[in-house]
Amino acid sequence: MRTSQYLLTTQKETPADAEVISHQLMLRAGLVRKLAAGFYSWLPLGLRVLRKVEQVVREEMDATGAIEISMPVMQPAELWQESGRWEQYGPELFRIKDRQQREFCLGPTHEEVVTDLVRQELKSYKQLPLNLYQIQTKMRDEIRPRFGIMRGREFLMKDAYSFHIDQPSLDATYRDMHRAYSNILTRLGLAFRPVIADTGSIGGSTSHEFQVLADSGEDEIAFSDSSDYAANVEMAEALALAGERPAPREPLTEIATPGVRTIDDLAQALAIEPALTVKTLLVGGSKPGSLVALVLRGDHQLNPLKAEKLEGIASPLTMASEEQVRAACGAGFGSLGPVGLELPVIVDRSAACLADFVCGANRDELHYTGVNWERDCSPQRIEDLRKVVQGDPSPDGQGRLQIKRGIEVGHIFQLGRKYSEAMQARVLDEQGRNVTMTMGCYGIGVSRIVAAAIEQNHDERGIVWPAAMAPFQLAIVPLNMQKSAAVAECAEALYTQFRAAGIEVLLDDRNERPGVKFADMELIGIPHRLVIGDRALEEGKVEYKGRRDSESCLIARDDSVATLLERLRG
Amino acid sequence: MRTSQYLLTTQKETPADAEVISHQLMLRAGLVRKLAAGFYSWLPLGLRVLRKVEQVVREEMDATGAIEISMPVMQPAELWQESGRWEQYGPELFRIKDRQQREFCLGPTHEEVVTDLVRQELKSYKQLPLNLYQIQTKMRDEIRPRFGIMRGREFLMKDAYSFHIDQPSLDATYRDMHRAYSNILTRLGLAFRPVIADTGSIGGSTSHEFQVLADSGEDEIAFSDSSDYAANVEMAEALALAGERPAPREPLTEIATPGVRTIDDLAQALAIEPALTVKTLLVGGSKPGSLVALVLRGDHQLNPLKAEKLEGIASPLTMASEEQVRAACGAGFGSLGPVGLELPVIVDRSAACLADFVCGANRDELHYTGVNWERDCSPQRIEDLRKVVQGDPSPDGQGRLQIKRGIEVGHIFQLGRKYSEAMQARVLDEQGRNVTMTMGCYGIGVSRIVAAAIEQNHDERGIVWPAAMAPFQLAIVPLNMQKSAAVAECAEALYTQFRAAGIEVLLDDRNERPGVKFADMELIGIPHRLVIGDRALEEGKVEYKGRRDSESCLIARDDSVATLLERLRG
Repeated sequence: MRTSQYLLTTQKETPADAEVISHQLMLRAGLVRKLAAGFYSWLPLGLRVLRKVEQVVREEMDATGAIEISMPVMQPAELWQESGRWEQYGPELFRIKDRQQREFCLGPTHEEVVTDLVRQELKSYKQLPLNLYQIQTKMRDEIRPRFGIMRGREFLMKDAYSFHIDQPSLDATYRDMHRAYSNILTRLGLAFRPVIADTGSIGGSTSHEFQVLADSGEDEIAFSDSSDYAANVEMAEALALAGERPAPREPLTEIATPGVRTIDDLAQALAIEPALTVKTLLVGGSKPGSLVALVLRGDHQLNPLKAEKLEGIASPLTMASEEQVRAACGAGFGSLGPVGLELPVIVDRSAACLADFVCGANRDELHYTGVNWERDCSPQRIEDLRKVVQGDPSPDGQGRLQIKRGIEVGHIFQLGRKYSEAMQARVLDEQGRNVTMTMGCYGIGVSRIVAAAIEQNHDERGIVWPAAMAPFQLAIVPLNMQKSAAVAECAEALYTQFRAAGIEVLLDDRNERPGVKFADMELIGIPHRLVIGDRALEEGKVEYKGRRDSESCLIARDDSVATLLERLRG
Repeated sequence: MRTSQYLLTTQKETPADAEVISHQLMLRAGLVRKLAAGFYSWLPLGLRVLRKVEQVVREEMDATGAIEISMPVMQPAELWQESGRWEQYGPELFRIKDRQQREFCLGPTHEEVVTDLVRQELKSYKQLPLNLYQIQTKMRDEIRPRFGIMRGREFLMKDAYSFHIDQPSLDATYRDMHRAYSNILTRLGLAFRPVIADTGSIGGSTSHEFQVLADSGEDEIAFSDSSDYAANVEMAEALALAGERPAPREPLTEIATPGVRTIDDLAQALAIEPALTVKTLLVGGSKPGSLVALVLRGDHQLNPLKAEKLEGIASPLTMASEEQVRAACGAGFGSLGPVGLELPVIVDRSAACLADFVCGANRDELHYTGVNWERDCSPQRIEDLRKVVQGDPSPDGQGRLQIKRGIEVGHIFQLGRKYSEAMQARVLDEQGRNVTMTMGCYGIGVSRIVAAAIEQNHDERGIVWPAAMAPFQLAIVPLNMQKSAAVAECAEALYTQFRAAGIEVLLDDRNERPGVKFADMELIGIPHRLVIGDRALEEGKVEYKGRRDSESCLIARDDSVATLLERLRG
């Protein structure tokens, strides 16, 4: 491709409303353009990258035996009513009426449509397992579309849905998909981690996210430094941080703590570590109007997802108001504690290991020191309540947890019978009985991968594409081509040779200054660059620079094709 | 691919609600399934065909230098308000509000979005011409979705939009697109005609449709038997059917015609050819409440599109009511005529060549014979008013017109400045002046081509795919594979060999009766079939049958790969 005949419209300035680097660089490099909040057009350069990701996804899906189909964007309300999600899904679901006033939605996901399709097509267990996928436009009315295509309202996804006669068959396909997703991200050249994940609104039991590691990621992931264990922080199990609880040594003592409101205030006032204090949080119980007290070590954070999954606690989690707290305990937020509290008390595993600790006295501006479980108050239930932190023991017993940030690009679920039961998707089994199929579903954000790759691979000059995602592999930059016949001739000859060798090459034949051309080719992240200039050419040389190299080097013009082909194919 | 691991769900019965053969066969062969009126899921077999069409379209577009982009399905109302189409487009436009109550539509076409994109990206005439295309999902709320994917509400289109500094540049790209569309349909193996077309609601001047010939087509096309001339019947120019008008020979004579209401009645009553009579139609004039009389030969039909484009006639065309006719002429529909009529009269070219003709006398149950223009009444204006018919002279003066039916699969337009003017899409020209760009747009119905191909290529046993569109090129059908080791071994060996040779082969390894397998492979239209059976195999033979062949033939098993590869690649 010649830049003069291409739509290459780069920008020098960082767009004002682009918060994250991938959004900034995608706009600056001319990969996408905003049409409306959350809606982006893909320009030629961006589309080339998107199609490469799409093709790798397709190849790896095909390799597992999954079969490609294509379902409509628009879906009739009836199917969503059948699954119960028409009511549940909330305002993220774009809803629309047709000219006959029939209700439809624009699919954010296709469980209903594919389950309806499969229940009509399949009759027998002999046709199972079946894994159907599509690479298709999805719509989601995000409350706050942001980060460019990372959190857009119209985006490209690969979604797959598998159907099984039983759990072992689902397990096998789930493993295949786990492997396929790892293959996809490995082939694309991305650093990633598959992590244990929550199933959220999709439902089901087992679930893994595929997280591309990037400092700017919205998710925190915890992984062992000595094993394969990895989980979204919200799902990572927190083990008790001490073994057996020591025996009490101090007496329970009430102390005045004027002005103390927070754990930090308290630790400072008493000159102790926050880890020797506990904090008490009141949350809504599962009975309407009831409250439950959660006790954590002062230096730990509550993991709301863990709490709301516990018996006796309302889901979604609600925090008690100042009024509710005062009515239930007789004190404000800063002076709560488990001693004498007439509420159900759930204690985090690590807090339950403390002895001689400090807590609020349920009277304003008073605390207790020398508090001990059993002796002074009962840890009625001990549960895992807290967010893991860097250095925690890994829940698989091997090594310690590291915490990194990641961008979720894939998510696989064991759905079980959630949809097939609601929608009566059944086949005849070997004994001729009607059985409900078991399902899995597997999503990967094709457009989001493009942004995630940039978050992970960029420098101050622009994008640094992994080879498999680069829109072009090689940029040929002739200097002063319009004036130097030798330069023009060499550039054209190399362009022809590389194209003939099947290399995706971009010839920058614009009549621009060298600096402009270099900056553009670096901004758009082309992995390899050959500069053709009069001076080097007189010595039979051309100048090579890899996108990650700090310096360029001269190579013989006559060897340049062979040399580059070796690098490009290696 | 093995049928046992594929989603091959054919149906014997013709679906009740499928009116046209392509719809019936697409359902029966398991290419698509209906989700809701006008919305279809593409099953694996259908999607393979769709992707082949898509790829041919992409290659031919790329070959012209057009550049692929991808614009959102959802488009903000503001852009459509800017072009004026938000009000004009009517109920075919799906409209939707987001959670902030902002208005959007689901794009049936992308003139507004691409014009907005280009006006922001381009600054200079040096960046022109630019032809941007996408292959993308389109939405149109058809009042009566029907014929399966032929007239669906969600469909796949390639739409391209070109931008130019002047008309000659547009002309050049328009010619390139005309050629590309011809290449696409030729490569797909379809019989088609590019025809002169109306520009309709898209607007602009010059326009051509690409019509795939099929008896079931909704359009009629007229083309010369001796030249390249071809036009949609509604656009085909009708020449006068006789040269100089003969001199009058008969006197004007009033005759009683009791009970005569139609031209057929009249011709029968007088025992003359309908071609010697004229009919007079009253239509709305461009002044509100006014009427205009249109006179055509008795055997000709009015072409409403031609009439409504004439000066002085209301557009869209309205026919006068019986009351209006009686008030204006003093007689009913059956007795109108140009003699003594006090209305503007427009006469069709062929009617204007008549002498001594018969027409109504503007009094009920009376007609005139021996009517002659000029002597008895004035042909105030002579225009082309009629639909051409089979055998008419070709308007280019070469040969006679044939009429065939066609399915419109592509449409190219010279838009001129309709959108660029309304949306102020300008660049600087060579002299530094701000000039409005000139545009073209070019659509091809990717999904519709699949249906059109079936309408053109089928027989009583099913689909007969052209090679370039077939989902698989070769079916290997082993008989009794589950019991005969020799058959299984041969089938597997051939399957492996053909796959290694890059042939798309479907191995029908289902445990089904031979009749079922044969019927399925013919229904889904695989061009070549090899049957592996014990009896022939004992003689070292396998059975070959082409999809269009009436008989099969035996070929040596050892030569079968070489023989088939020759046929497949030829």
